[in-house]
Amino acid sequence: MTAPGLRGRKKAETRRRLAAAAVDLFSERGFDAVTMQDVAAAADVGSRTVFRYFVDKAELVFADEAVVDEELRQVLRTEPAQVDAWSAVEAALVKLTDLWADQRREGVRRRRLVAGSAALTARHLLKLDRHAEVIAEELVARGAAREAARVIGRCATAAFDCAVDRWLDDPQVSLAEALQDALDVLRH
Amino acid sequence: MTAPGLRGRKKAETRRRLAAAAVDLFSERGFDAVTMQDVAAAADVGSRTVFRYFVDKAELVFADEAVVDEELRQVLRTEPAQVDAWSAVEAALVKLTDLWADQRREGVRRRRLVAGSAALTARHLLKLDRHAEVIAEELVARGAAREAARVIGRCATAAFDCAVDRWLDDPQVSLAEALQDALDVLRH
Repeated sequence: MTAPGLRGRKKAETRRRLAAAAVDLFSERGFDAVTMQDVAAAADVGSRTVFRYFVDKAELVFADEAVVDEELRQVLRTEPAQVDAWSAVEAALVKLTDLWADQRREGVRRRRLVAGSAALTARHLLKLDRHAEVIAEELVARGAAREAARVIGRCATAAFDCAVDRWLDDPQVSLAEALQDALDVLRH
Repeated sequence: MTAPGLRGRKKAETRRRLAAAAVDLFSERGFDAVTMQDVAAAADVGSRTVFRYFVDKAELVFADEAVVDEELRQVLRTEPAQVDAWSAVEAALVKLTDLWADQRREGVRRRRLVAGSAALTARHLLKLDRHAEVIAEELVARGAAREAARVIGRCATAAFDCAVDRWLDDPQVSLAEALQDALDVLRH
């Protein structure tokens, strides 16, 4: 990826600002009670701007996830070819834990929102399934069989999600530890 | 569970009839184009009857899933205490494959519906998550740690779902074989 220019940086900044305003409002009033118009007003932009960046309200809660697929792809493409599929995926998940490690407070807030809304829970599960598919695609490109790649993608993202939940629940556990524990359960 | 009486059997029959009529209509016209009223008319009942059995349109596609949690619980409760968590879950999944093995045609039709609708895909993922939670609860009752139980529940249901997809895709593969292959990938 080339470094984003000024326009790209400004767009990323607007995206971040809209998402932050939205999560504030959702946390205060509840997800269902907030409209896209409310988010626009809070961020001091027109509501068409919000719709240009986010197709719907639920997407505002998952704004950070856009980078997840990119990170997963990057690690899976740079791991040496002789590294087996599970080890390559583990390397990719470890990279994600590094990126998220300092975002516990934000994570707890978002998780509360997601747990409190069936629509957001469904969107969260769809996002995970998308990440699983990205992993599967990259594993196939590395030579794995499609069926095995799909199982690994689904189970790796499920284990990662369990690790994130545990980390957000328990301030004593780091995300890296929680991930290793979850992967150990998988390695039965 | 006690054997259902006449009233219970009649209710189960109505449920089945409504779901069958709904899947027919959804397959013909597309999920979004059919209303609960259309389903009621096709099954020759009032629309309040449909709502009494199914809280919304998406539930009509997953009518059979009500038994899944019951089957999972039953196997996990009857497996001997010394059987480890993964083996007990495997036994439960094998039992499900027995139940579903002769429903390939119906399964393909339903899967097409689900794949063609974001709302149904989301509902499907929520159902899987619910099954994962049932497995986790039963494993905890068998003495497993909560965190491990959750990982096993999520990964077992994900592997099972991949196996069902493969079975529906490939008439050469039995569901039992597809499940064993998926579990082998997990046992890396």
